[in-house]
Amino acid sequence: MLIIPEALIAGLVSEVDALAAVSDCFASMARGGARNFPVVREALGQGRQYGFKSGIDVSGGMLGLKSGGYFPANMERGLTNHQSTVFLFDPDSGVPVAMVGGNLLTALRTAAASALSIDLLARRDAKVLGIVGAGHQAAFQLRAAARVRPWEKVIGWNLHPEMLPKLAAVAAGLGLPFEAVGLERMVDADAIITITSSPAASLMAAHVSAGTHLACMGTDTKGKQEVEAALLAKARVFTDEVAQSVMIGEAQHAVAAGLIEAGAITPLGDVVAGMQSGRQSDGEITLFDGTGVGLQDLAVAGMAVKRARERGLGFTVEV
Amino acid sequence: MLIIPEALIAGLVSEVDALAAVSDCFASMARGGARNFPVVREALGQGRQYGFKSGIDVSGGMLGLKSGGYFPANMERGLTNHQSTVFLFDPDSGVPVAMVGGNLLTALRTAAASALSIDLLARRDAKVLGIVGAGHQAAFQLRAAARVRPWEKVIGWNLHPEMLPKLAAVAAGLGLPFEAVGLERMVDADAIITITSSPAASLMAAHVSAGTHLACMGTDTKGKQEVEAALLAKARVFTDEVAQSVMIGEAQHAVAAGLIEAGAITPLGDVVAGMQSGRQSDGEITLFDGTGVGLQDLAVAGMAVKRARERGLGFTVEV
Repeated sequence: MLIIPEALIAGLVSEVDALAAVSDCFASMARGGARNFPVVREALGQGRQYGFKSGIDVSGGMLGLKSGGYFPANMERGLTNHQSTVFLFDPDSGVPVAMVGGNLLTALRTAAASALSIDLLARRDAKVLGIVGAGHQAAFQLRAAARVRPWEKVIGWNLHPEMLPKLAAVAAGLGLPFEAVGLERMVDADAIITITSSPAASLMAAHVSAGTHLACMGTDTKGKQEVEAALLAKARVFTDEVAQSVMIGEAQHAVAAGLIEAGAITPLGDVVAGMQSGRQSDGEITLFDGTGVGLQDLAVAGMAVKRARERGLGFTVEV
Repeated sequence: MLIIPEALIAGLVSEVDALAAVSDCFASMARGGARNFPVVREALGQGRQYGFKSGIDVSGGMLGLKSGGYFPANMERGLTNHQSTVFLFDPDSGVPVAMVGGNLLTALRTAAASALSIDLLARRDAKVLGIVGAGHQAAFQLRAAARVRPWEKVIGWNLHPEMLPKLAAVAAGLGLPFEAVGLERMVDADAIITITSSPAASLMAAHVSAGTHLACMGTDTKGKQEVEAALLAKARVFTDEVAQSVMIGEAQHAVAAGLIEAGAITPLGDVVAGMQSGRQSDGEITLFDGTGVGLQDLAVAGMAVKRARERGLGFTVEV
């Protein structure tokens, strides 16, 4: 069994790797060769959350789970608040194949899904990228998005504007001008990523121009909401997994309000696999509801294993 | 993080260790300090089953899961058909603490639960042990049961009687006479362990004498059944976890038939913790429905970690 510690991941899995892995994984889901198992998610008290996302990808030869959680007291101990580990097994024999540190991978796979949606759904001539949110994951989102379009400018909003300079520095690192804006200025964006953990909508329908693509990446549980439900009614809605989208994703609110139906939501993998069209006109609003599925975690962990084997990295232990 | 490979388990965790660990774990469940999370169990095709049992034991400082499954083609490759691995995490920080081979532990924790039920519920003067089933786990059941009563004789039945000599050899190793019998001879037993994977009842109410204790250990999924439902109506019924007992355990059939109610089933941990009485008279039939909970797996894995640390065994890896 191969052990790939967290510290090795940054040197092993690039944004391009993550994009390829997530794209393949969504296509496998669309073709029926991969499916996610039910999610376990439990409150442990004192704000701690823990759970498991798991699945099998027959075509990718992958079976496994990500165990992960949120431990708010970790910061005081010098640990990341989010703790994740991915375990991979041989789908034929059940024998453990790899254990892979999952903290950085979680950010990479989330950003990869968002960037994939931008690649497939944003207008070809998109120039201005809007980002709503400026926390830990926003930087990953920006870097991944920079891989799929030649942006000319980034505009950003955050509930706490004092966090925006960090995001501006990431943009500067990519050679992109950055402007801190009010939400009403998001009408200037050709694509908007929302990456907050907000309990109520920040971005309203009036803040979004015709022809914009939205990647709503922050809502992964009941009760979170990033954009006005009416925006989903105006958009063609895509997602990683429809069942999660309507249950715990951004679409939960629009579906509950009767504004859209689950059947009208398109899995992004269907677009990757060529089974459904992507953007159909320059004027339509497209919206990707990224909820985060277990198979994405397995996919990027599988990529880490591939890279580690190529380079002889990680530790092999007898199990 | 400590890695304890499968091959080390036999030398680390004794039957007595497993009994103590499972007893503590059931008591924690009774006192509310420990709970199991929802079970994930998925069919993978070609007869393969895979899933996760998980939970948290606050008092025992344990958080984790057992990933495991059944891979019928493994035998041809020289691997065990059942493949299990236990992963333990620090419940305060979510950081991985240990990975422990779970194949032998699964047999040990199942046998420990059965033996614990015999210890708490069989008559003090029990002399004859009956065993229904003679597969891989029956030997573990017999060895664990031998720890809790001074048996004078073992009687055994199996659908395929040609498997009984192996069980007889285990009895001989314990210095106990063994007799292969028909099911109707189980009336001679003071305690009966059923450990089959039968889809229909073998042991009938008429095969069981007053004052007998039954440990029904084989039914862990919908559709399995080891004993006649009417037997549960005649017995005081105990279990590891009531929710599992009525859903996937031996009690599923008696509850579905309206013969017993979930509320009448006593968690064995309540008896361990002194919150409920065990056997109340020499004449009553007691029946333990052992369904197997994730916390049992964590408990014996935790014991393996304790023993490995005491003896400096296992491998430490950076995660």
